[in-house]
Amino acid sequence: MVVGAGFAGVSAVHHLRDQPVEVTIVDRHNFHTFQPLLYQVATAGLDPADVAYPVRTIFGREHNVVFRHGRAEAVDVDARSVTLADGGVIAYDHLVVATGATTGYLAVPGASDHALPLYTLADARRLRNTVLGCLEEADARPEEFDDGAPTFVVVGGGATGVEISGALVELLQVAVRRDRLRIDPKRSKVILLEAGKRLLSGFKEEAGRYAEQTLRSRGVDVRLGTSVAEVKGDGVRLGDGQWLPAAVVVWAGGVTVDGTLAAALPAPHGRGGRVTLEPDLSVTGHPEVFVVGDAGAVPWGPARAEPCPQVAQVAIQSGRHAARQVLRQLQGQPTTAFTYHDKGLMATIGRHAAVAQLRRGPIFRGTIGWLAWLGLHLVYLVGFRNRLVVLINWSWRYLDWPSGPRLIVADVDADL
Amino acid sequence: MVVGAGFAGVSAVHHLRDQPVEVTIVDRHNFHTFQPLLYQVATAGLDPADVAYPVRTIFGREHNVVFRHGRAEAVDVDARSVTLADGGVIAYDHLVVATGATTGYLAVPGASDHALPLYTLADARRLRNTVLGCLEEADARPEEFDDGAPTFVVVGGGATGVEISGALVELLQVAVRRDRLRIDPKRSKVILLEAGKRLLSGFKEEAGRYAEQTLRSRGVDVRLGTSVAEVKGDGVRLGDGQWLPAAVVVWAGGVTVDGTLAAALPAPHGRGGRVTLEPDLSVTGHPEVFVVGDAGAVPWGPARAEPCPQVAQVAIQSGRHAARQVLRQLQGQPTTAFTYHDKGLMATIGRHAAVAQLRRGPIFRGTIGWLAWLGLHLVYLVGFRNRLVVLINWSWRYLDWPSGPRLIVADVDADL
Repeated sequence: MVVGAGFAGVSAVHHLRDQPVEVTIVDRHNFHTFQPLLYQVATAGLDPADVAYPVRTIFGREHNVVFRHGRAEAVDVDARSVTLADGGVIAYDHLVVATGATTGYLAVPGASDHALPLYTLADARRLRNTVLGCLEEADARPEEFDDGAPTFVVVGGGATGVEISGALVELLQVAVRRDRLRIDPKRSKVILLEAGKRLLSGFKEEAGRYAEQTLRSRGVDVRLGTSVAEVKGDGVRLGDGQWLPAAVVVWAGGVTVDGTLAAALPAPHGRGGRVTLEPDLSVTGHPEVFVVGDAGAVPWGPARAEPCPQVAQVAIQSGRHAARQVLRQLQGQPTTAFTYHDKGLMATIGRHAAVAQLRRGPIFRGTIGWLAWLGLHLVYLVGFRNRLVVLINWSWRYLDWPSGPRLIVADVDADL
Repeated sequence: MVVGAGFAGVSAVHHLRDQPVEVTIVDRHNFHTFQPLLYQVATAGLDPADVAYPVRTIFGREHNVVFRHGRAEAVDVDARSVTLADGGVIAYDHLVVATGATTGYLAVPGASDHALPLYTLADARRLRNTVLGCLEEADARPEEFDDGAPTFVVVGGGATGVEISGALVELLQVAVRRDRLRIDPKRSKVILLEAGKRLLSGFKEEAGRYAEQTLRSRGVDVRLGTSVAEVKGDGVRLGDGQWLPAAVVVWAGGVTVDGTLAAALPAPHGRGGRVTLEPDLSVTGHPEVFVVGDAGAVPWGPARAEPCPQVAQVAIQSGRHAARQVLRQLQGQPTTAFTYHDKGLMATIGRHAAVAQLRRGPIFRGTIGWLAWLGLHLVYLVGFRNRLVVLINWSWRYLDWPSGPRLIVADVDADL
């Protein structure tokens, strides 16, 4: 049984297909989300359907795979069963926990109430509706805003924070130039706050500097060494007490495993709630339970002591490893230790600007980095139809966004 | 000033572009909706973004057109101003009211609470989430349903009711065959209820009979002469007292102008609340106020006494007529009477089956009708990008739906 249909869960199931096992995959959503592109959904570059793919379609031809739509709520590792929120109970022989993480607010007061996260597809839609609605409001009633125009504050200078900041300034330019929204581009600001000394702390220092320079040259107000003490409905209070008015606060300040099924596992939990694992990715004392992807403190392997970063490649590789260990156990073979094969890191800053950092060799940046980023993300998108539609959307965007999905579609028609 | 960015409002603004007038178009959504395809969004054939197009993009190059996002709440025809829900007041010299209609529940108890309408994009998304969620529930917990499988009841046998019924049976087949949902196709039913003696009452009798036969042959339980007395959360009570259990009730029982800005106009209102109009589409006593599209009882012209049907062609033609009358008034010319040029009616029943009824000549049906329907709807979709993406989605669908946007994406992650 696999819980979670993100990169890690889908990868695990993928490597169990056509094997002599019955696989049940559970997810609270009926789709897999391509999380690296969520920031483009949030900034109206892509549609929600472009980055999501039904789980049933992914495994439509695998007759040993069953999908169960539901939220896994509790696990009994002794009875070997998982209980779902709707009351369903699923027994397992082997369990792969791939429940990912949720937004971590680092106990900053007001953050979970007033800042908008960007971890799920629903988050991305809500952020888009809020940002576009705010731009319409600024056009109709500029007097409602400090400075007469909205300020967007992004908290956290990791890959998500850098990407959403770059995409927000581009969206602002589009709003003014193509959509003729009456917003003073000199007054409407995007401010990126990072508590550490540099952006993209997971990358090499050179990549962080490039991101910082590029964002600044495009108009983002990058503030390093700036922590957030409190978030309110109309702005943020910084660590030094200064008040920063903001129409929208985007939270890219980190993730936590707390609150997910992995957090409920009877095992030690490390930083961010990640489950501490054996070298083969199983839970100590329960060789039949594996934790993969963001949920686990996936050991890097013999080379490095710290756990792997919470990125897609780790999820994919750890999911595959867990699937292989299950098959080895069924064949009576001993399990093997996981080793992460670092293929590099990538982040895009906007049109014609991205950093691609390979494990060895140079850092690609600028247009080359951007093209590498586009190509790789297209290849990894699930489903040919999605790839085609994303390619169309990106081409349109490149050709100066004559249209694009800048729609404010809420589930219920708001009364404004 | 034009209120409403549906077919009628967009048509009116379109014919005022590049004219010596300043045009403000107001809508509570920031997008135009291609309503004839909403039922495909509801049944997961198309994405929301495929049938919606930002108003700002439509008029991005028209420098005499300004878009204002907001809900028009009141109109003062003496002071010549419209008040928006957010407090904004917009003065006008000429007013074109194109606020359309809303779902009409015909005072059937429980209908507005428990039946799902299909008039806005938000309606379509909600219906899709409900239907797909219901299918997942039937897979996981069939014991929750009467007969062990969900029944879908569609109320109203007009074009919308016929189209959604046909699309729902196709979706059920896809769910079982491609998504391998464990639902007994013999137990899961689509029931279409129509109070009148035949389907598609606006069409010729032959078209209604064809729709009835085709739907029946595809497994829809068509019940004519069957009215609905009450809707509850778990089914409907029919006019004869019979109880019909239903997992989902779709309301395609008609529309009303009540509750819209048009209803607040100081003018006589006819059937369904439609505003009674002068032959030139103006409001009696207020030659500077025009009502177009679904909101008005648009006179057919000298040929026929009854008002035009509430269809896209009437909206487009009446919007254009009102724009021309405004220009005539500005030039000091007398206004002219509106005449509807009936180009025919179309409804699709599913793959390879549609009826296209031209004003004169034969009724096209079957594959020819279907191809005509596909072509015409593609041509009328706003925006080349949308056309391209819809074409891709339809081609995919035709090629046996290997994927498709069958996503349950709510604004807020439901706790299931």
